[in-house]
Amino acid sequence: MRLLSRIRSLRRPLLEATAHCDLPCGVYDPAQARIEAESIKAIQEKYQANEDPEFRTRALLIKEQRAELVKHHLWVLWTDYFKPPHFEKYPELHDLFNRATKAAGAAGAKGSMDPAKGQELLDLIAQIDKIFWETKQAA
Amino acid sequence: MRLLSRIRSLRRPLLEATAHCDLPCGVYDPAQARIEAESIKAIQEKYQANEDPEFRTRALLIKEQRAELVKHHLWVLWTDYFKPPHFEKYPELHDLFNRATKAAGAAGAKGSMDPAKGQELLDLIAQIDKIFWETKQAA
Amino acid sequence: MRLLSRIRSLRRPLLEATAHCDLPCGVYDPAQARIEAESIKAIQEKYQANEDPEFRTRALLIKEQRAELVKHHLWVLWTDYFKPPHFEKYPELHDLFNRATKAAGAAGAKGSMDPAKGQELLDLIAQIDKIFWETKQAA
Amino acid sequence: MRLLSRIRSLRRPLLEATAHCDLPCGVYDPAQARIEAESIKAIQEKYQANEDPEFRTRALLIKEQRAELVKHHLWVLWTDYFKPPHFEKYPELHDLFNRATKAAGAAGAKGSMDPAKGQELLDLIAQIDKIFWETKQAA
Amino acid sequence: MRLLSRIRSLRRPLLEATAHCDLPCGVYDPAQARIEAESIKAIQEKYQANEDPEFRTRALLIKEQRAELVKHHLWVLWTDYFKPPHFEKYPELHDLFNRATKAAGAAGAKGSMDPAKGQELLDLIAQIDKIFWETKQAA
Amino acid sequence: MRLLSRIRSLRRPLLEATAHCDLPCGVYDPAQARIEAESIKAIQEKYQANEDPEFRTRALLIKEQRAELVKHHLWVLWTDYFKPPHFEKYPELHDLFNRATKAAGAAGAKGSMDPAKGQELLDLIAQIDKIFWETKQAA
Repeated sequence: MRLLSRIRSLRRPLLEATAHCDLPCGVYDPAQARIEAESIKAIQEKYQANEDPEFRTRALLIKEQRAELVKHHLWVLWTDYFKPPHFEKYPELHDLFNRATKAAGAAGAKGSMDPAKGQELLDLIAQIDKIFWETKQAA
Repeated sequence: MRLLSRIRSLRRPLLEATAHCDLPCGVYDPAQARIEAESIKAIQEKYQANEDPEFRTRALLIKEQRAELVKHHLWVLWTDYFKPPHFEKYPELHDLFNRATKAAGAAGAKGSMDPAKGQELLDLIAQIDKIFWETKQAA
Repeated sequence: MRLLSRIRSLRRPLLEATAHCDLPCGVYDPAQARIEAESIKAIQEKYQANEDPEFRTRALLIKEQRAELVKHHLWVLWTDYFKPPHFEKYPELHDLFNRATKAAGAAGAKGSMDPAKGQELLDLIAQIDKIFWETKQAA
Repeated sequence: MRLLSRIRSLRRPLLEATAHCDLPCGVYDPAQARIEAESIKAIQEKYQANEDPEFRTRALLIKEQRAELVKHHLWVLWTDYFKPPHFEKYPELHDLFNRATKAAGAAGAKGSMDPAKGQELLDLIAQIDKIFWETKQAA
Repeated sequence: MRLLSRIRSLRRPLLEATAHCDLPCGVYDPAQARIEAESIKAIQEKYQANEDPEFRTRALLIKEQRAELVKHHLWVLWTDYFKPPHFEKYPELHDLFNRATKAAGAAGAKGSMDPAKGQELLDLIAQIDKIFWETKQAA
Repeated sequence: MRLLSRIRSLRRPLLEATAHCDLPCGVYDPAQARIEAESIKAIQEKYQANEDPEFRTRALLIKEQRAELVKHHLWVLWTDYFKPPHFEKYPELHDLFNRATKAAGAAGAKGSMDPAKGQELLDLIAQIDKIFWETKQAA
């Protein structure tokens, strides 16, 4: 991992490391959303493996928070990073983001403790990640 | 917009009064975003009329918060309220929401103290508001 | 209350549409508190109609957040909008706000999943709403 | 106020140390509001002694947060701790809380960098503190 | 701990009453962490005495918030108040803070509804409190 | 990047992707702190290149938020991820985390708009990152 991490940091400017503030500072990365989604799936798996009511209530409220973060990180990418030329080149992008944020909501990973819902969310984020890095290389 | 607002309030049940939680509780209303946008424009106007540096700094940080709320409320409508049939009937809806949230961000009302930027945001929200209530009546 | 709401919306400028920031931007409206209270009652009703433990836990934690927002919005009106002349003209106003915020707390809508508690809160907010718009017209 | 504080601490059980959650957990103390107010006055004094624009902007945004906390802690005491019998015994209590929260807002310590405004807020909190501990002893 | 608390309050200026902002305003006090920990223990005791599922869910989510606050207040003391000379004089301080914050987390008071876990946390905070006031007197 | 990203995900379990919730979900990664620190340095650079007072105020308040996040992410790693055996094997770890969180605070990147302060913070996080991944491989 360390080696890969080093190689990676040599290939891309560190400023491409993530997405957040709306100064904007100019750093964006779908990893933020993916990481929270990984957490969601992990929480769902731990929930299924533990029937203690106190643990389950804590898992539900913490997953609620992580799912809200996934929605936020995806919304930030959709509004702050992607520009008109991107949406022209990738006509499915609007729908992809809409389905991904819905998959992080009540009808998806936020409302369910089924790890399969967490995986569906991860798969949609992976599609966004693929397009994101294509636009980065094209830049 | 005033007129639309008046007509609308004559036909809607109170439970359709706003949009928020992702239980979901089922209540949505573009008024939440519009109200924060009205606040933004009011702050921009007060900023232009007051050169006290302390007041101006407070205005900048408070407007930052309201603009973030506008983005959030619009994102909630786009992801949680609008469904595939809506996007089919209103093909411009994705782009409209993307432009409206961008207009609430750094390149728009969040990044500027010009009331004209606040008005541009209000105009885009009014377009969303119009479509929203059309879908409510169609329901 | 529906009628009051309709009449009111026919006479108020949009900038009077809501209450929030403490710049202050000058916009106030009991609708913010009422809307969260409507959400609370809707959550209580959905809770009574759904025995799924995961759904019920989510309903409890989300209602907790909405109830806290009701208290906040009412406190903002009581402190930031209402001035000494108002309290002189409406001697019951202090007590009314105190009872309303208590009705949104642990002994009321926050602590209970009974929709009747949500309605009690809505009724108190309606009384505040009536006085609020009377002061607006007197202004 | 120093003296009152010393006397008080000699007679109260630790569980009476502060006020916060709305379970409720049952612990309340005006110290929470007073402490944030002390911070506000300290920030105002540091602001007056430092003309660096970056420092002053940081002081303004941090004081904004502390002032909001003062309002919140006072509102919690007014709604969650004080009951009807208290308001009957102390008829000035509603007005005192209203003036204290106003003194923490835009027209007072939140809107000004004058330490005198911070002191005015502290004096009002001291009056609330005195009544609070009288009710605790009467309990 | 009661005694220490009493003695301490007899010798400290009010401005030393608590720890928070990172301007910094210069006010610090372990009381902030201790107070939240007292709340945690009170919630744990109320939870054990009440089998109502709605009450218990509310107790779990509220305790989660208070436990996070304890961790935050302790982290602030460890990073913002204590300086290299303190860590030299009290070599166990790093470990003490690490154990105390762990005791407020999932393996301790945050993850358990056993009041004994709340007491363990309070005991560790008392050790930090003792060292804190020694450094204050040495200053 | 995509390729590296794929290779990386083949070599390590995705659950090692980041650190956050205190269920705990079990995912930790110093990248969270590093990413916010990258943002801080970018904001400091943009601040130096832009003398517009409105932009500078926004940069100051946004950097304040990112710096607080860096401190939080580092505190989470120090308390939630690292265990006694780690501190025995890396005796400098406590001091390293204390210096890194101080470097993200008022005396460091939070209090200064000098990109050099942002770089100092990044260098300390890199040292933590190195130790973190060594412990991951040893696991």
